[in-house]
Amino acid sequence: MTLSPEPHEPAIRVAVSTVIVALRPHPDTGAPALWMPLVRRVAEPFEGSWALPGGWVRPDEGLEDSAAARLRETTNVQPRYLEQLYAFGDVDRSPSRVVSIVYWALVHPDEASSVPDDWNVRWFLADEHPPLAFDHDRIVDYALWRLRNKMSYSRIAQAFLGDRFTLAELRGVYEAVLGRALDPANFRRQVEKTDAILPTDETTSGGRHRPARLYRSNPDLAYADNGPLQTGTPQQRNR
Amino acid sequence: MTLSPEPHEPAIRVAVSTVIVALRPHPDTGAPALWMPLVRRVAEPFEGSWALPGGWVRPDEGLEDSAAARLRETTNVQPRYLEQLYAFGDVDRSPSRVVSIVYWALVHPDEASSVPDDWNVRWFLADEHPPLAFDHDRIVDYALWRLRNKMSYSRIAQAFLGDRFTLAELRGVYEAVLGRALDPANFRRQVEKTDAILPTDETTSGGRHRPARLYRSNPDLAYADNGPLQTGTPQQRNR
Repeated sequence: MTLSPEPHEPAIRVAVSTVIVALRPHPDTGAPALWMPLVRRVAEPFEGSWALPGGWVRPDEGLEDSAAARLRETTNVQPRYLEQLYAFGDVDRSPSRVVSIVYWALVHPDEASSVPDDWNVRWFLADEHPPLAFDHDRIVDYALWRLRNKMSYSRIAQAFLGDRFTLAELRGVYEAVLGRALDPANFRRQVEKTDAILPTDETTSGGRHRPARLYRSNPDLAYADNGPLQTGTPQQRNR
Repeated sequence: MTLSPEPHEPAIRVAVSTVIVALRPHPDTGAPALWMPLVRRVAEPFEGSWALPGGWVRPDEGLEDSAAARLRETTNVQPRYLEQLYAFGDVDRSPSRVVSIVYWALVHPDEASSVPDDWNVRWFLADEHPPLAFDHDRIVDYALWRLRNKMSYSRIAQAFLGDRFTLAELRGVYEAVLGRALDPANFRRQVEKTDAILPTDETTSGGRHRPARLYRSNPDLAYADNGPLQTGTPQQRNR
């Protein structure tokens, strides 16, 4: 980093945006599917278009705190899992020069229910959303690609679920993200080889189905290991 | 992204920095070790301290082009492998508010030799560098941690080597990054199970050792798959 200030250079502004993804039933099949809440833009450019929730970084905010604050303000979500995804800074991505630090949030059903579904904020199927403002289509494509990749080497799938879940629910997450059906017996064997989830004494109750064993995340393992960057979730740090 | 400009807010400035890593012999053991070139600061703050090479992003530069340009200007390196690592933006990481988009570059011996080793730029063992300016110690820790992790699920190790290399040289990369010795026979079996490298008809010649088979990277596979972000290296794009 050179240090001479360059006051004559036009400013580059810094924004944060967040790709929020949650699992909800597909309207046609009822199977779990990936959904994203998007925010309607109320000013130019792209007035009336849908966009990722976000906003400007304030000078007194760190990047992750800023992402969490803009997310809370625009969608009422306070996700447990918020991770920096990528900084997007192409010269022509916005009429003015904006570098957007993009986060992703995987939210479980309780968190997802706090998002309104109204004129300003609406849930869309991740694979069927309308064309988005700025370069947000590219950002969403990248986020979904990273999510699919990351499922293969981390425990990120559990971030979509509540405190207790069945193996079928966990498999549903994988099937929704990967976009293909998985063999239940194979899936059970794979999962039981790891210590990522732990069986509880509880089962699902009633309904038309047989009771199924409930599992929980292994609390000794983080959803994703960020190594030296490990600082806790925004909520933990705000306490 | 909200759109109202906020002209009264003090600006946040955007910089790029790059963690360059190359393999060179350890001065004590002669075994391959991780080295980094660092740049001496010639202005306050941290005047005289060592820091990662980098500088301000210019308004007409994309982030990756900016990282490549600042790297060329400060260290004369034009790496084949340059990847965005993380955006660092803590409020107190610099006396003024600076968000640094950090890249990493893994350079092979030919590229490493273009870096000067003088008063302004000097190579340090990655594990034994002096305390760095700003939060650059934390950035280096994070980069080395990511590199170790990434070795396990990508072909990134080959970015350290030239066009032709022996299995012993490739194993040396893993040993240097992971910081432990690997069993040669096991390593050969693991590598031969993949299509990451291909044997050539060539062997090493002469010297005190038996000739060893030379391998090359499989040109059909990228060092790292960036999915929808795949845009080629900066040099390729500048052509």
